[in-house]
Amino acid sequence: MKTYLDCIPCFFKQALYSARMSKASKKTQKAILEQLARTIQKISLKFSPPEMARIIHKQMYKLTKEYDPYKKVKLQSNKMALKIFNKLKRKVSHSQDRLLMATELAIAGNIIDYGAKHSLSVDNELKKILNYENKFIKKEGERLFNYQSFKRVLKRAKTILYLADNAGETVFDRVLIEEIKKMDTKKEIVYAVKEKPAINDALIEDALFCGIDKSAKVISSGVDAPGTVLSLCSKEFLKLYRKADMVISKGQGNFEALSAVKRPIFFMFMAKCPVIAREVNCEIGNIILLFKGKK
Amino acid sequence: MKTYLDCIPCFFKQALYSARMSKASKKTQKAILEQLARTIQKISLKFSPPEMARIIHKQMYKLTKEYDPYKKVKLQSNKMALKIFNKLKRKVSHSQDRLLMATELAIAGNIIDYGAKHSLSVDNELKKILNYENKFIKKEGERLFNYQSFKRVLKRAKTILYLADNAGETVFDRVLIEEIKKMDTKKEIVYAVKEKPAINDALIEDALFCGIDKSAKVISSGVDAPGTVLSLCSKEFLKLYRKADMVISKGQGNFEALSAVKRPIFFMFMAKCPVIAREVNCEIGNIILLFKGKK
Repeated sequence: MKTYLDCIPCFFKQALYSARMSKASKKTQKAILEQLARTIQKISLKFSPPEMARIIHKQMYKLTKEYDPYKKVKLQSNKMALKIFNKLKRKVSHSQDRLLMATELAIAGNIIDYGAKHSLSVDNELKKILNYENKFIKKEGERLFNYQSFKRVLKRAKTILYLADNAGETVFDRVLIEEIKKMDTKKEIVYAVKEKPAINDALIEDALFCGIDKSAKVISSGVDAPGTVLSLCSKEFLKLYRKADMVISKGQGNFEALSAVKRPIFFMFMAKCPVIAREVNCEIGNIILLFKGKK
Repeated sequence: MKTYLDCIPCFFKQALYSARMSKASKKTQKAILEQLARTIQKISLKFSPPEMARIIHKQMYKLTKEYDPYKKVKLQSNKMALKIFNKLKRKVSHSQDRLLMATELAIAGNIIDYGAKHSLSVDNELKKILNYENKFIKKEGERLFNYQSFKRVLKRAKTILYLADNAGETVFDRVLIEEIKKMDTKKEIVYAVKEKPAINDALIEDALFCGIDKSAKVISSGVDAPGTVLSLCSKEFLKLYRKADMVISKGQGNFEALSAVKRPIFFMFMAKCPVIAREVNCEIGNIILLFKGKK
């Protein structure tokens, strides 16, 4: 997905928020916005939003010297999500369609996104998910929730590449991954996280902290952007990406990076900004399970 | 009030929205954002947000050649608000404290603000106001709703300068002005609008269209910014501003322009952005009646 003009105000908001997360002085915050203003004049909008965000955050780190401003926030999100892990598992085991519930929860967990929401009360959002009675989780029907295709492809898939999005959300991913393994323990699932800090995206340490490695192989995609931009991926990752029977892509950032590729992918995310909502023709807050590519 | 760093993303959003209101091509929209990016690097944040907005919109007009992009929207707002004028009057006449109700409605009418809200369904907002049962109108108590001082000063004031904000909102202002005149027909009320287009701020034509001239004298402040910036006001206006027994200032823009002046002013607005909410220490959506200056 290309960057829209509407993304530009959002880049400024994101940069300011990240600068504050880095504890930058007001002077540095202003310098960061001015630098971004210079960048905006130069970069082509043909880049996808995660590519733009990567450039912006790289420049920012030079000014703030803060390599991982969301480190603390990521750890908090992991801990808060882990606290409700058993409750999430119970929700799944008490539901009529276990896989459906696990899938819905995995997508709902995508709410833990500091890139799209800027300020966020993870605690409140988790409470909303737990209190869900088909109210919080809004779906647009089969058009944007291709569950039947998902189930069909999943059943046959032997190797599954699962592209992670945010820290904390990893716990929700674990619930779904464990459910998939329960279907067939022989399924090989690889959980790919980012190589270097990118907003609050999960890194290897987050995946391990949340216990994903108990049921999936955890790898890095090689990427240091808040979305799996193929041109930035490692050779090892790309090999796997090409040969996997199924790719599950979590989050807006991965959708923005991969929505135009030919490879069949199941995109799972919560629509959190008007640009994405327009792109897939849904409302903000909808949970999306979209199959793109050859069916 | 000075401009905060948080205002910068908002300037970009505003510029993009205004560019679209001007029916600018995508190329021009991008040029406008790039020009704004250049401006941001140069201007001091000591200017108030309305002064910044004035510079930005002046530059924009050069690219779009559209002098009054909100003309149609302003007319629509006027028409929609006029449609409910009788209902608003009935609300006042059926209430126990007529002046209080008229004041609350006048502030609630400040929701019709394309500067702060960017996209807005005036129709929906008006419905919310009409269906109000002390639910839509949220107040923070006497600290931010100085109604007793307002009533006291109003009672004694012979000349009242009323600074208008947005088109459409003028109808709500008319309700309050007529209520004040009902208290004492000898009170002289002057309703000051902007001289030239500034977002959806009311001009002379809007005041007349909404029938304000039936109970107040309508003048222009001489300003072409979305806030009554004193250094831009005409001599005639400033004379009146200095000698009036009471100044009522409507809207965020006027508050941003005048919050630091020494002259006693009653500020009435709905808090619509996080910066203003932080500035006065309230929540977004609160209606504010704030007396500043010597008491």
